[in-house]
Amino acid sequence: MAQNIYDDPQFFAAYSQFQRSVLGLDGAPEWPAMHALLPPMQGLRVVDLGCGFGWFCRWAAEAGAAAVLGVDVSENMLGRARAATADHAVQYTLGDLDHLDLPEAAFELAYSSLALHYVDELEGLLATLHRALVPGGRFVFSIEHPIYMAPMKPGWITLADGRKAWPLDSYQGEGRRKTDWLTEGVIKQHRTLGTTLNLLIRQGFEIRHVEEWKPTAGQLAASPQAAEEIDRPIFLLVAADRGAG
Amino acid sequence: MAQNIYDDPQFFAAYSQFQRSVLGLDGAPEWPAMHALLPPMQGLRVVDLGCGFGWFCRWAAEAGAAAVLGVDVSENMLGRARAATADHAVQYTLGDLDHLDLPEAAFELAYSSLALHYVDELEGLLATLHRALVPGGRFVFSIEHPIYMAPMKPGWITLADGRKAWPLDSYQGEGRRKTDWLTEGVIKQHRTLGTTLNLLIRQGFEIRHVEEWKPTAGQLAASPQAAEEIDRPIFLLVAADRGAG
Repeated sequence: MAQNIYDDPQFFAAYSQFQRSVLGLDGAPEWPAMHALLPPMQGLRVVDLGCGFGWFCRWAAEAGAAAVLGVDVSENMLGRARAATADHAVQYTLGDLDHLDLPEAAFELAYSSLALHYVDELEGLLATLHRALVPGGRFVFSIEHPIYMAPMKPGWITLADGRKAWPLDSYQGEGRRKTDWLTEGVIKQHRTLGTTLNLLIRQGFEIRHVEEWKPTAGQLAASPQAAEEIDRPIFLLVAADRGAG
Repeated sequence: MAQNIYDDPQFFAAYSQFQRSVLGLDGAPEWPAMHALLPPMQGLRVVDLGCGFGWFCRWAAEAGAAAVLGVDVSENMLGRARAATADHAVQYTLGDLDHLDLPEAAFELAYSSLALHYVDELEGLLATLHRALVPGGRFVFSIEHPIYMAPMKPGWITLADGRKAWPLDSYQGEGRRKTDWLTEGVIKQHRTLGTTLNLLIRQGFEIRHVEEWKPTAGQLAASPQAAEEIDRPIFLLVAADRGAG
């Protein structure tokens, strides 16, 4: 299985301070763009892969989903998710995305926010998801953008003429990336954008939208720091449909 | 219309020296990957957007295409293309890809090699192409990769620790890029990968394959210089099908 960094005490403590951990969806700048890719939630059966504190699960149930299953590898996160959830339409289960078992044709929507870059065997997970969705079902996910993931030592630099740049290397070198983010030795899996899309297509998904997220004008005005996201994308958002076949 | 740099004498003279200009398809390192995206050519009606010297048009006819139409904005290139072509299945026509007129449902294959990044109004061209293809027809194209296109002053740098990197900036800043490549002031249009794919999807194309081209092991062995393509992709190759609708 992939590393479960969220149960590392130092990582968990730091992650818990994040805006998106404290404020939920409204603390995630890419949420409006994710939201725009979702179908109307009324009556849907939803699975959330890497549900974390359960913010999306609770939102989906409030928006009318019939049943929401949140899956996460972190006991810590599921504990908080359960404590924060009163709605009986929402259920949580401990699960490793590298070895996930889901019932067949059981969901109209699969959702995943910033979790799939931890998965070692993405193709197997996509095959599982394709089977778990009904024909015409939708899969919406975000991952760290491969431009953000690729460098062996990620970080901004200032060029000789004073411009800021994101020094890219190893974009084609897929595989493990070990970074020190919140704690030491966080392991992620870098895949090119082409690889991720082609894995989806090979499993029978139809690509509906590919969004290299950038802040809106309003977000830029509110947070000048966000301007660096114009120079290189940090998140990749994808919507894909399970074909009828 | 977009700039027609190929009829600039200095540009044309330099471009004519390129391996891909002298050797044709075999001089283009990405050709095997493009070839892999093509359907069997036997009996197809083919349009080549930005056909240049006509290498692909002649290859398609030799591979069994029933009719091949090469379109290019450059009189210089079409002159050479015509002079090099004996096969009556191949026809060439002068055309501006920003204002292209094609007959409806007249082609099984549309092809374009490294031309669409000169096009100002890509969405209009894609609409024209979608109409010009028969249902189930295929569109295969390459462009300069947006990671390669994006920087305001493209060029490799060496980092403090000796590693080479491609300093990325302005990835989200779509629009004109003016570079000095072969001659001064070459104008291209930068679009994010997401934008290109979403324009295709919006026009009714189904994405079949997205390839961020990299050299093969054999190409790397034969040309160590090609190793820099591992650090950042230079070409983007896409195969998309015109849906039945």
